[in-house]
Amino acid sequence: MPQKAFQDYYPDHLSYCYGCGRLNEHGLQIKSYWDENGEETVCSFTPRDYHIAIPGYVYGGLIASIIDCHATGTAAAAAYRVAGREMDTLPAFRFLTAALHVDYLRPTPLNVPLNLRARVKEIKGRKVVVSVHLYAKDEECARGEVIAVQAPDELTTKL
Amino acid sequence: MPQKAFQDYYPDHLSYCYGCGRLNEHGLQIKSYWDENGEETVCSFTPRDYHIAIPGYVYGGLIASIIDCHATGTAAAAAYRVAGREMDTLPAFRFLTAALHVDYLRPTPLNVPLNLRARVKEIKGRKVVVSVHLYAKDEECARGEVIAVQAPDELTTKL
Repeated sequence: MPQKAFQDYYPDHLSYCYGCGRLNEHGLQIKSYWDENGEETVCSFTPRDYHIAIPGYVYGGLIASIIDCHATGTAAAAAYRVAGREMDTLPAFRFLTAALHVDYLRPTPLNVPLNLRARVKEIKGRKVVVSVHLYAKDEECARGEVIAVQAPDELTTKL
Repeated sequence: MPQKAFQDYYPDHLSYCYGCGRLNEHGLQIKSYWDENGEETVCSFTPRDYHIAIPGYVYGGLIASIIDCHATGTAAAAAYRVAGREMDTLPAFRFLTAALHVDYLRPTPLNVPLNLRARVKEIKGRKVVVSVHLYAKDEECARGEVIAVQAPDELTTKL
């Protein structure tokens, strides 16, 4: 049975995020998982041909977007783990981005999968700091850091 | 006659950026202008209803994307100004993002225009640092800083 992605556990009403919501049919629908050691998280996404910046290279906003969503998904998975809870238990942990930083190390080529690898740098109370590395063809093209904060209940409770 | 946006001066082969290229039919096609004093730049963009994070609020990756493109457009306009050149003269100045930082100050509401205002903090050689403020209903929702670097000729010359 294939492993379920973090985003597949989000409750339906919180699954419309443009970057990672499985129910947003216009969105990117990225999928994040623990790696084989359970220490880092991984995600692979192949940009569409119109996610272009200049000819041949990926649009930086798309890179920022997938770093952002992979990091907030990682934050949620880490919070469940710290709480000793399974990801399908309620109330759902959902994280919002308080700050996003991306360094673009080199132009990122189009038409290949982008592989992201993230690690929790800090988890304290409702805040999780996640670092993300993005590779294309085994070359690191971008590096990000996200400060994710657990969404307040009034924003995530089903209306 | 309506003012031409910075992005309307980009040569055709550099006008396919997902965020700001006027020829990318799938993209956001943002438009940036000098403000009435010619000191700051402005851009207004209304997210589509699927640019959602959680119900009622704009997706952070979209906010990062429009901050990024408004900043690189601002960098190009500023570079032309410093060079004493009109924006329709060749060779074209195009800027790539070396680093992007966004602080999300509060959830950004959907269904209203997002108004961006940017200022050049530093311009030196091929590097321009731009700060951006993003408002919804006159409330500042996000703040960004972009380090933009003039694209090397080999990336922007028409193949």
